[in-house]
Amino acid sequence: MKYYPDPILKLINSLSKLPGIGKKTAERLALHILHAPNHEAVTLAADIIELKNSIRLCTVCFALSDKDKCRICSDPLRDKSLICVVENPTDMAAIEKSNAFSGTYHILGGALSPIDGIGPDDIRIKELFKRADPEKIKEIILATKTNVEGEATASYILEKLKKTKIRITRIASGIPMGSDLQYIDQLTMQKAMEKRYGF
Amino acid sequence: MKYYPDPILKLINSLSKLPGIGKKTAERLALHILHAPNHEAVTLAADIIELKNSIRLCTVCFALSDKDKCRICSDPLRDKSLICVVENPTDMAAIEKSNAFSGTYHILGGALSPIDGIGPDDIRIKELFKRADPEKIKEIILATKTNVEGEATASYILEKLKKTKIRITRIASGIPMGSDLQYIDQLTMQKAMEKRYGF
Repeated sequence: MKYYPDPILKLINSLSKLPGIGKKTAERLALHILHAPNHEAVTLAADIIELKNSIRLCTVCFALSDKDKCRICSDPLRDKSLICVVENPTDMAAIEKSNAFSGTYHILGGALSPIDGIGPDDIRIKELFKRADPEKIKEIILATKTNVEGEATASYILEKLKKTKIRITRIASGIPMGSDLQYIDQLTMQKAMEKRYGF
Repeated sequence: MKYYPDPILKLINSLSKLPGIGKKTAERLALHILHAPNHEAVTLAADIIELKNSIRLCTVCFALSDKDKCRICSDPLRDKSLICVVENPTDMAAIEKSNAFSGTYHILGGALSPIDGIGPDDIRIKELFKRADPEKIKEIILATKTNVEGEATASYILEKLKKTKIRITRIASGIPMGSDLQYIDQLTMQKAMEKRYGF
């Protein structure tokens, strides 16, 4: 790509470090930015810097936030007696998108994985136990992933909290809505049969 | 997407203005930038600003450049008696990628298009004629696009320059290398037959 002047090559290089952006796409984006109105490019650059400077973790639930308390934890309409435990902010975003939950969250920041050397002290499990005051919390929903690490994390939390008065639940596993049964993997099918319910 | 704090939403919004970047991709990129090392994000932002501030047009050929004269025009190894006329910098980049040309360029900045109100004075045709000194220039290769506007532009330039001693040529049209003949459009096939050559 040596036919472009250095500033373009530098931006192409920086852009191509982003996930899913190859050299070709980076080239197209850089040329777009070059021809875009000045304020658009300046806004983009400023937004990148602002993001890095202002985002921290909510002191209550550890969600991404630009304030001490995140939008959900400071929303009076959200049910504070319900905590949904997730591994990371994108999982939380997925649940929020569904509009199926009106409680609060607890973001662990990962899952237990002895093989990778991640134990209970490496994720925010202690902080969850601190929040698990039976006077205030009615239910804790374990929404860690449905892979080995997520299941292990859910089991660990259940084990530690099952003696309290708090109801502990796990999000359901089964056939995704609208799916064709023939494309469902064996494990999911087993889970769907095992967890079948009556009417 | 209201579950993200404002600085993330703002960056998602800015990123999704880029071509081919939808809300979903913008979300993934923003979260990547959030978790990327600080210097990477700062470099990206700085590169965007530097690009906008430093890129201008080469005073000779009007290619993108960060200096008065672009890299090709100031390269002593490039043949200054050969000018390849293209519509825009991406066309020039495509030719450079092929390594098939060792002369210089002239970037018109568009093509003649009476229907859009683009006449000879709206693109850099006059500047090309100024460069077309028969003492210095041996050949001008017309590499405008092969669509109606590009062909019209090539014809116009040919008409104006054919009385000079400069050799005027047009890049060849025909079957792309490695293509299956059954997928070639009619117009290309006609051109390929018309321009067939002997051995």
